[in-house]
Amino acid sequence: MAVQKLKIACAGLGRMGKRHALHFLERTPRAELVAASTPDDNEIQWAKQHLEPFGVRLYKDYDEMLKHEGLQAVVIASVTTVHAEQAIKAIDANLHVLCEKPLSTSVEVSQSVVDAARKKPHLKVMCGFSRRFDNSYRDAFDKMESGLIGRPSIFRSQTCDKLDPSGFFVAYAEFSGGIFVDCSIHDIDLALWFFGQDSQVKSVVSSGITALQPELRKHNDRDNAVGIVEFYGGQVAYLFCSRMMAAGQDDATEIIGTEGKLTVNAQPMANLVNIYESTGIRREIPPHYYGRFEQAFVNEANEFTACCLDDLKLPMKLTGAVQAVKIGCALQESLISGKKIYFDEMGNRSEKALL
Amino acid sequence: MAVQKLKIACAGLGRMGKRHALHFLERTPRAELVAASTPDDNEIQWAKQHLEPFGVRLYKDYDEMLKHEGLQAVVIASVTTVHAEQAIKAIDANLHVLCEKPLSTSVEVSQSVVDAARKKPHLKVMCGFSRRFDNSYRDAFDKMESGLIGRPSIFRSQTCDKLDPSGFFVAYAEFSGGIFVDCSIHDIDLALWFFGQDSQVKSVVSSGITALQPELRKHNDRDNAVGIVEFYGGQVAYLFCSRMMAAGQDDATEIIGTEGKLTVNAQPMANLVNIYESTGIRREIPPHYYGRFEQAFVNEANEFTACCLDDLKLPMKLTGAVQAVKIGCALQESLISGKKIYFDEMGNRSEKALL
Amino acid sequence: MAVQKLKIACAGLGRMGKRHALHFLERTPRAELVAASTPDDNEIQWAKQHLEPFGVRLYKDYDEMLKHEGLQAVVIASVTTVHAEQAIKAIDANLHVLCEKPLSTSVEVSQSVVDAARKKPHLKVMCGFSRRFDNSYRDAFDKMESGLIGRPSIFRSQTCDKLDPSGFFVAYAEFSGGIFVDCSIHDIDLALWFFGQDSQVKSVVSSGITALQPELRKHNDRDNAVGIVEFYGGQVAYLFCSRMMAAGQDDATEIIGTEGKLTVNAQPMANLVNIYESTGIRREIPPHYYGRFEQAFVNEANEFTACCLDDLKLPMKLTGAVQAVKIGCALQESLISGKKIYFDEMGNRSEKALL
Amino acid sequence: MAVQKLKIACAGLGRMGKRHALHFLERTPRAELVAASTPDDNEIQWAKQHLEPFGVRLYKDYDEMLKHEGLQAVVIASVTTVHAEQAIKAIDANLHVLCEKPLSTSVEVSQSVVDAARKKPHLKVMCGFSRRFDNSYRDAFDKMESGLIGRPSIFRSQTCDKLDPSGFFVAYAEFSGGIFVDCSIHDIDLALWFFGQDSQVKSVVSSGITALQPELRKHNDRDNAVGIVEFYGGQVAYLFCSRMMAAGQDDATEIIGTEGKLTVNAQPMANLVNIYESTGIRREIPPHYYGRFEQAFVNEANEFTACCLDDLKLPMKLTGAVQAVKIGCALQESLISGKKIYFDEMGNRSEKALL
Repeated sequence: MAVQKLKIACAGLGRMGKRHALHFLERTPRAELVAASTPDDNEIQWAKQHLEPFGVRLYKDYDEMLKHEGLQAVVIASVTTVHAEQAIKAIDANLHVLCEKPLSTSVEVSQSVVDAARKKPHLKVMCGFSRRFDNSYRDAFDKMESGLIGRPSIFRSQTCDKLDPSGFFVAYAEFSGGIFVDCSIHDIDLALWFFGQDSQVKSVVSSGITALQPELRKHNDRDNAVGIVEFYGGQVAYLFCSRMMAAGQDDATEIIGTEGKLTVNAQPMANLVNIYESTGIRREIPPHYYGRFEQAFVNEANEFTACCLDDLKLPMKLTGAVQAVKIGCALQESLISGKKIYFDEMGNRSEKALL
Repeated sequence: MAVQKLKIACAGLGRMGKRHALHFLERTPRAELVAASTPDDNEIQWAKQHLEPFGVRLYKDYDEMLKHEGLQAVVIASVTTVHAEQAIKAIDANLHVLCEKPLSTSVEVSQSVVDAARKKPHLKVMCGFSRRFDNSYRDAFDKMESGLIGRPSIFRSQTCDKLDPSGFFVAYAEFSGGIFVDCSIHDIDLALWFFGQDSQVKSVVSSGITALQPELRKHNDRDNAVGIVEFYGGQVAYLFCSRMMAAGQDDATEIIGTEGKLTVNAQPMANLVNIYESTGIRREIPPHYYGRFEQAFVNEANEFTACCLDDLKLPMKLTGAVQAVKIGCALQESLISGKKIYFDEMGNRSEKALL
Repeated sequence: MAVQKLKIACAGLGRMGKRHALHFLERTPRAELVAASTPDDNEIQWAKQHLEPFGVRLYKDYDEMLKHEGLQAVVIASVTTVHAEQAIKAIDANLHVLCEKPLSTSVEVSQSVVDAARKKPHLKVMCGFSRRFDNSYRDAFDKMESGLIGRPSIFRSQTCDKLDPSGFFVAYAEFSGGIFVDCSIHDIDLALWFFGQDSQVKSVVSSGITALQPELRKHNDRDNAVGIVEFYGGQVAYLFCSRMMAAGQDDATEIIGTEGKLTVNAQPMANLVNIYESTGIRREIPPHYYGRFEQAFVNEANEFTACCLDDLKLPMKLTGAVQAVKIGCALQESLISGKKIYFDEMGNRSEKALL
Repeated sequence: MAVQKLKIACAGLGRMGKRHALHFLERTPRAELVAASTPDDNEIQWAKQHLEPFGVRLYKDYDEMLKHEGLQAVVIASVTTVHAEQAIKAIDANLHVLCEKPLSTSVEVSQSVVDAARKKPHLKVMCGFSRRFDNSYRDAFDKMESGLIGRPSIFRSQTCDKLDPSGFFVAYAEFSGGIFVDCSIHDIDLALWFFGQDSQVKSVVSSGITALQPELRKHNDRDNAVGIVEFYGGQVAYLFCSRMMAAGQDDATEIIGTEGKLTVNAQPMANLVNIYESTGIRREIPPHYYGRFEQAFVNEANEFTACCLDDLKLPMKLTGAVQAVKIGCALQESLISGKKIYFDEMGNRSEKALL
């Protein structure tokens, strides 16, 4: 009768860290959140109230937490700059790892996590691209796989955040890697998923503007950008990312195939309510990505747990996370240089167009 | 090479009369509007500007207009109270007739038009239920006829007018025949169309309220009402009519069959624009029925013209217009009496339920 | 630091019983499912696999289960015919009760549960109308409460089940109380919620057909029905219930107020995917009510648990469940008799219309 | 009482020529179609049946037609290769001109029409971008102009034709100018409209594939392509064009502003019918662009007529048509070369990125 639960710890208790901690504590029946770490005093206070009473041990030091008796896995939700370092330490400590995206804003650093993971093939190491766990994206993927739209050929995807007039995005841009690495990384990962995990990028090009926040320019960032990603194999993805969507989180995707098209969230909505009033018919939409993807995060926690406990194959390769960062960084570079960037079939930069 | 056009006159130049006149003048290539009549001086002024310059002869007297040289047809868009009288006079003058709905708010008077028309089988006499000419309703009907939803069984339809705070509807209620005769007559006609023109009513019952305009009660009317109509043959229609829709004209219909359902305008919209703003996503809807059915009225004018010129069968029987008034009047009676009303298979009132 | 969890048992492990048991076991962090009972051997087998390994004690006898050490609450998901008896026994055993709807298909029996509960005011006794816990319905209710649509006046609601060609519904009709008691009870409960829990019914009338399953007639049931419910206070609800919806579960509600309208699920969808293919644009819808209301059931479990642990007021009165059954039974009676049924302001049947 | 009508002739009676001819004959009250020309015998046969009986004089020779007594205007709907030549001849003959898009697939040839028109400022010379006359686009434009979405910043637009498996598009590609010049020209014109007629292009870049029709490559064309157009002034348009949309014509536009977003036709539909069936809920969409834009073409005919008769300002500048061709040709060139193309602020090509 002894039901085994996965003993997991949460690193970082910021906005997403709190959510991951609570998902593993309350909504992942096969997991047991045993520990959490954060260097931040406010976050420790929050944890004393919301985690400690339920048997979660709190640590101010990540390294200490890794030594927690019986610990089997770590979910890393700290600031992006320490993702890779913490992931590698956990791997070295023989722990399964679920790391928030991105592994790093640097391709090389991202790759170092893959290298570390390769040495420990018994461990489950996953970069948490939440949309992979969203029921609608999964349904679309299954429909595509079943042949419903023929051969997928063109991919359109956008990640549009609600305008935050507080200036948060400007400060955030210093470390975020830029809008393509921070926002579009999800869309890039989706493109790799729908076009095939081993798709090779052939070129990227992008353009952007600072419509509302010119201060972003000092961090080489923009508040709106579009990009095109060509793949060897003859598919094209085109992307839009924005920090100024008035209505809320507006993330939509289209997969255009030779025999049909699938859309995901082309008509965003917060719920099933419509309001008829003198100005017309209105519906609300989720203000933030968590309003759109809450259930996907919960699915992620449960599936990661099952993969660890039952030694199942993870739903995506870790190498894909590096490929996504590589494409995101190249798009960000093109955004600033104004130039198109080419890659040869080996994945190396090339000076000229390869037709 | 002499192309024959139908010489038609328009009786009444009120709100709908103006529209009918212009439809025949400008948007019905095979018709020629040769005359128009109205006793109203303001309407005459309007006509001097918009009709007369294009060769339309104006009359203050309807009877005079009927004698217009070469006249072949009349469209009657005057006040409801004279519909029947004018229609019968036109029939007696050997003119085709397109009469605005309803023929009359009285079943007997409506029947008198049918009786008159029966004596002149060479004439086209049609009561203009505009929705019969709407492309969406027609598409739904064709799909049903093709068997797409199996056997039609339940019919839901609503006619909801935008709130008019001017008090217009209260004054109007004195002559309109009531909300079921004025608004729901369209839905009743649609039910007869979709269930079959010769469907026999078995019972009607209704309930209503005066949510905003209690003054309607002095004319035995309500501003919101729902009703159920049972037919021999085992189908049921249920209806909603309202005078207080905040967003605009909200007319929707569902036809539920044994193998599927068809909806028409279940998601009303003024056009194809959506507005994303801080309060959500919004679309506008037509403020009035003409915004929804303009093209249907134009189709009606063109098809009536073709039926007259080419001696084609009209798309609906005139007897249906009497049946619609009969059901509408019974619903209106039930609304006031609070009682269910039964009919035997001959169409006569019955005191008790016939199961 | 001792976090108290609600020790709860589940009675009945049929279709809904399994779900309730798993909700309390896995998705209700503050509850501990300690026991489950069922007289059915197949259900016991299922429970040995899915519940027992997690520490849930299994009982074949409900009465025995009630004596389980430390038990604090029971969720009753057995067949409708024993709902009331089991609820009263649990109340007598000083246990909180969450009972699946309806309390009974009989008004008197339903009332007996209320009477029992009244004697134990410290207990939480709730009839589980799941839609009350649905995020969309709640959002609509909050918007109405905030005045967004003025005074709610007309209420339209439908519960349409996917066609089940197996004949299940015919067998089920013997005990279900009929389509209005089984399906529309949800819509009636919603009407009472939106119009006010203490709304007094003034009249009911209904009509129905057996479009596909004439065998239902032997149990005085129909496969499609519409009804009108008038309330003292000047509101009207009208309802549609069906057992033959081709596309899946099609449950929609509209609340029409003096200044606007709210719709809930007027455009059903299984998820956020749209499929463009040669026949047009298509989306799927949930096949069954659990596909639509899963999260509402989980919310229900969590909120009931919180009410028990923290001695909070339940979100709805138990008397409403009796009122809903009363209206449902009257609609079912009218469906068979073909007659309108009137109530006086005391809630007693009246022979004649009260205007 | 002499109402003046615009005497107009139609050049070309192919697919669009027939439609233009009929629009001016039947649906443009202030115009009189007096002549039509085509060198094609089949088209002459069609015209003998559909135009001649209504008083339209037929010509096999365009130049002859220009001498038609009293002719005031010409609508040019012949093959693209003769658009410019015919337009210039008509201008030289002192006739108003409504020319189907594009003026030419060559920038220089397009400019020659502008030059000719400049010498006759009393003439109305318009290139018919039909979407400018579409009610939904106009409503969106008006809303933008009123400030509803702040400052327009990002523009997304797509023109997706239904897959035509006949091979038509391959043959057509020889003369069409390519997919960006043929399809996206509409989207480019819309971008110029919404961003301001005098917007200066800064760069273009594009990518494309031949997903289904590799034979297009021999004409330097593709069946799917995406492009980015940067404007001086800090706006960006991004475009998608396709020849393989399974469901039908799928033309959508989004205008993203600093305070909101407007979409046009993001949810395409043929009409207001939805079909509920066992596979879900479905709606049809127009198979071709005429199904989507029929009314816009009729509006165009009427407004062009009014501009000629009343000497009103045309709704758009002819120079915009040259600018659209210029951008379309550059996108087409980038599609083949794989290179990004830069322009300086004078509109001249530049070798390097101008940041």
